[in-house]
Amino acid sequence: MKKAVVLLSGGLDSATVLAVACDQNYQCYALSVDYGQRHRSELEAAQKVARLLGAHRQQIIKLDLTAFGGSALTDEAIAVPITGEEKEIPVTYVPARNTIMLSLALAWAETLQSQDIFVGVNAVDYSGYPDCRPEYIAAFEQMANLATKAGVEGNKLTIHAPLMHLSKKEIIQTGLRLGVDFSLTVSCYQADEAGRACGVCDSCRIRKAGFEAAGVADPTCYRS
Amino acid sequence: MKKAVVLLSGGLDSATVLAVACDQNYQCYALSVDYGQRHRSELEAAQKVARLLGAHRQQIIKLDLTAFGGSALTDEAIAVPITGEEKEIPVTYVPARNTIMLSLALAWAETLQSQDIFVGVNAVDYSGYPDCRPEYIAAFEQMANLATKAGVEGNKLTIHAPLMHLSKKEIIQTGLRLGVDFSLTVSCYQADEAGRACGVCDSCRIRKAGFEAAGVADPTCYRS
Repeated sequence: MKKAVVLLSGGLDSATVLAVACDQNYQCYALSVDYGQRHRSELEAAQKVARLLGAHRQQIIKLDLTAFGGSALTDEAIAVPITGEEKEIPVTYVPARNTIMLSLALAWAETLQSQDIFVGVNAVDYSGYPDCRPEYIAAFEQMANLATKAGVEGNKLTIHAPLMHLSKKEIIQTGLRLGVDFSLTVSCYQADEAGRACGVCDSCRIRKAGFEAAGVADPTCYRS
Repeated sequence: MKKAVVLLSGGLDSATVLAVACDQNYQCYALSVDYGQRHRSELEAAQKVARLLGAHRQQIIKLDLTAFGGSALTDEAIAVPITGEEKEIPVTYVPARNTIMLSLALAWAETLQSQDIFVGVNAVDYSGYPDCRPEYIAAFEQMANLATKAGVEGNKLTIHAPLMHLSKKEIIQTGLRLGVDFSLTVSCYQADEAGRACGVCDSCRIRKAGFEAAGVADPTCYRS
């Protein structure tokens, strides 16, 4: 079995990506990052999802990004927007987050001698983050192949972003088909300790609309 | 004053890079990473160097790379080679280390609205790590410009690697000219708690030969 490192936040998208990687017969090493996010309950969700979907191993790495701040998710002083009216890149964007997470995945992949990294970025129903675009993923892959031993030895590393061009509706349909229990996942930017969602932040809005579009009951636990 | 994030390990090269960045009139934000390295005393060295050279701020970020292992520097079970006979990529190579550190620098740069990152990689007198090559740095820069807000808004971010094509001799000469006190720096892969060097690992050998070639007294504190 080929090994793959799968970035698993505990949200709807990354849970679906883990299911896709398992379905493609990879032995999956799920990597979650405790970066001081406001919605820490997503990490517990990640553990449950990894167990349910049969990840071979799950690891949570601690890295305190609140030291840098600069985002509503890593700085208590910046509020999570709830009006759905933000233009351009929203304040929930965490500087360089995907680059940091992919770098950590790259480190683990290299020690495991894995040439496959899966990430749940999406450029359709997303929040407008620059590090979710296909050209960014392509550039990361190119850099990664120059950064590592594997690259030097000619073993190409691939960054798989299977959700890149899917709508939220299609992601939900894919996840359901592959056995993801979305009630376990936490997408809300300000989920409480029990993982209950606010229902009004951008992430909740996009998720809610996805379930509506898919025509399935929304299993999300809302707190109001 | 323009702000720059400078990766500062506490070794000879990164101390020189910090001096170069200060000399170029950047307001310097020195970033060190406590990644569980065997030679933790380099972190104390980094603090002293940052203070001496007048870094505007220094920050040490904790990130436990021993969770992944795969290197003599992050896995106690792998010995640091001392024969100077290693071929190809040595076991002191830490998987994806420069990519992770540059990613962290990128995150800090973005929150500071800095467009300049300095790193002490070198492709002449070095240990043969893939992530020290010019083509790697160029690929990282390209990726970074797609990853971030600044990139989207057209403010180009530059990765400065001013030591890339210098010999160790030239690096030492540059550092001395700019006031670096190399006795404060720790390069040894297995320096003890007091920062005293072994004198026989690859890093010690390259450093020693550099001082010899430069014709200056080696200020390194050796333990034997």
